[in-house]
Amino acid sequence: MVQQSMTDSLIERPVFIVSDSTGITAETFSHAVLSQFEAIAFQSVRLPFIDSVEKADAAARRITQQADRGGPPPLVFSTLVDPEIADRIRAAPCVFLDLFGSFVHHLEGVLGVSASRSVGRSHTNGLSKQYNNRIEAINFSLAHDDGQYVQGLEQADVILVGVSRCGKTPTSLYLAMQYAVKAANYPLIPEDFDRGALPAALLPYRRKLFGLSIQPDRLSEVRNERRPNSTYASLKQCRQEVADAERLMRMENIPWLSTTTRSIEEISTKILDEVGLDRMSY
Amino acid sequence: MVQQSMTDSLIERPVFIVSDSTGITAETFSHAVLSQFEAIAFQSVRLPFIDSVEKADAAARRITQQADRGGPPPLVFSTLVDPEIADRIRAAPCVFLDLFGSFVHHLEGVLGVSASRSVGRSHTNGLSKQYNNRIEAINFSLAHDDGQYVQGLEQADVILVGVSRCGKTPTSLYLAMQYAVKAANYPLIPEDFDRGALPAALLPYRRKLFGLSIQPDRLSEVRNERRPNSTYASLKQCRQEVADAERLMRMENIPWLSTTTRSIEEISTKILDEVGLDRMSY
Repeated sequence: MVQQSMTDSLIERPVFIVSDSTGITAETFSHAVLSQFEAIAFQSVRLPFIDSVEKADAAARRITQQADRGGPPPLVFSTLVDPEIADRIRAAPCVFLDLFGSFVHHLEGVLGVSASRSVGRSHTNGLSKQYNNRIEAINFSLAHDDGQYVQGLEQADVILVGVSRCGKTPTSLYLAMQYAVKAANYPLIPEDFDRGALPAALLPYRRKLFGLSIQPDRLSEVRNERRPNSTYASLKQCRQEVADAERLMRMENIPWLSTTTRSIEEISTKILDEVGLDRMSY
Repeated sequence: MVQQSMTDSLIERPVFIVSDSTGITAETFSHAVLSQFEAIAFQSVRLPFIDSVEKADAAARRITQQADRGGPPPLVFSTLVDPEIADRIRAAPCVFLDLFGSFVHHLEGVLGVSASRSVGRSHTNGLSKQYNNRIEAINFSLAHDDGQYVQGLEQADVILVGVSRCGKTPTSLYLAMQYAVKAANYPLIPEDFDRGALPAALLPYRRKLFGLSIQPDRLSEVRNERRPNSTYASLKQCRQEVADAERLMRMENIPWLSTTTRSIEEISTKILDEVGLDRMSY
């Protein structure tokens, strides 16, 4: 995982992600912190659903086995909330990083109430309203991918527009999955540029439009993976489409950004920020 | 966000998520920690891309405005890595929770190297190999959703099977997006149960199959949202299909789990755990 692709000359360090639930919080956090140490190749193993003393003992044995192979002691990122379970892991030969312990204790003092210390609470329950909103948004984004379904666009929170393969689909799905945002997407194609106008189906929803663009050489690379050596993938065609699309978006006052070097996380956060949906996160 | 849906009788507490990048790490972490305090309704605002002293001063002003409205001081979850930027926020009237500071400092001692303290490193760059693997997996999962495309199944890391609307599609997309796992999915339908055999297209990939099931009453609810009062959505039909599917999966020795009360995060983590893909995370 983190920096796995680096060369063998790097120092290697084993990492365990230990959680009473999925481990996604601990994994996200460890990834962010460890990315600050570029000289070390971290090899991570996830140990999720450690929600009993028996499972903690099994996890501790696995960490001990790793330590017994020699080398520096493993790093353990823990989001365990039950102190008894956490202590079993802490006793193993490792550098124990207690993500919850210190913050929860601090917050108990600040907030003047005790934490429930109940396990597996970080993720919304599969039957909660908030969770259902996310699933509904995923279904909406799938149904309204690539302009395939125009009915229901009035329910969209945002409609992404841009040339084919500029990143609309993965961004729409990420917005839906992570933030329960109903994100449709609709392609801008050469016929639109010839007419010099937005697709007619989008005109009633002009305020919901957000544009994505991309550098022509990167677009050509992406399109060549799908249709090698086609006119569609040629640098000339990509340059023309991108220039036309950016001109149309400027003319229509559609906010837009370039996806070229950005991840779907970054693109999505910028969109939420710009269209004022930043309170909608689950 | 966290516990926003709770009633007005709860104590309210403003929360700011401050990051030099997307804020997703800080948001995930704050969500997990704050879910331990059920008696308080947290109102979160994300302040992403705070990567200069000027932006930090603007963020600090916003936090100060909130504090000036009275009530308890806002909580600030920060993943700012630049100490100068972090100090600007820390000086505002707030409870400053420095997610990186303490752990990065501790790890510098443990690892014997200095952290790079470069901003926005938590997410894979939009041009990296790891990132491209995720996008490729998303495209694969979309193309192989609901058995619509059989070519290329040999490239799948896992093929989810189960009755219609049991959760295969969102789980496949989550596995692809979060873990770069090429997750196809294929429906089990009454014709398969009549034959008492898996769909022929799946037979070469038996080892890649993982089943999802669901309680019949929950399935009936989900199907009724899509096709109200249909035979397809009837409790009788759902009971029959679920019983038949579970019998087939047992007969064919396909590992499976119930999605009824689980989130896609939990389902995905369990699948990775069971099929031994737990090292594939990005």
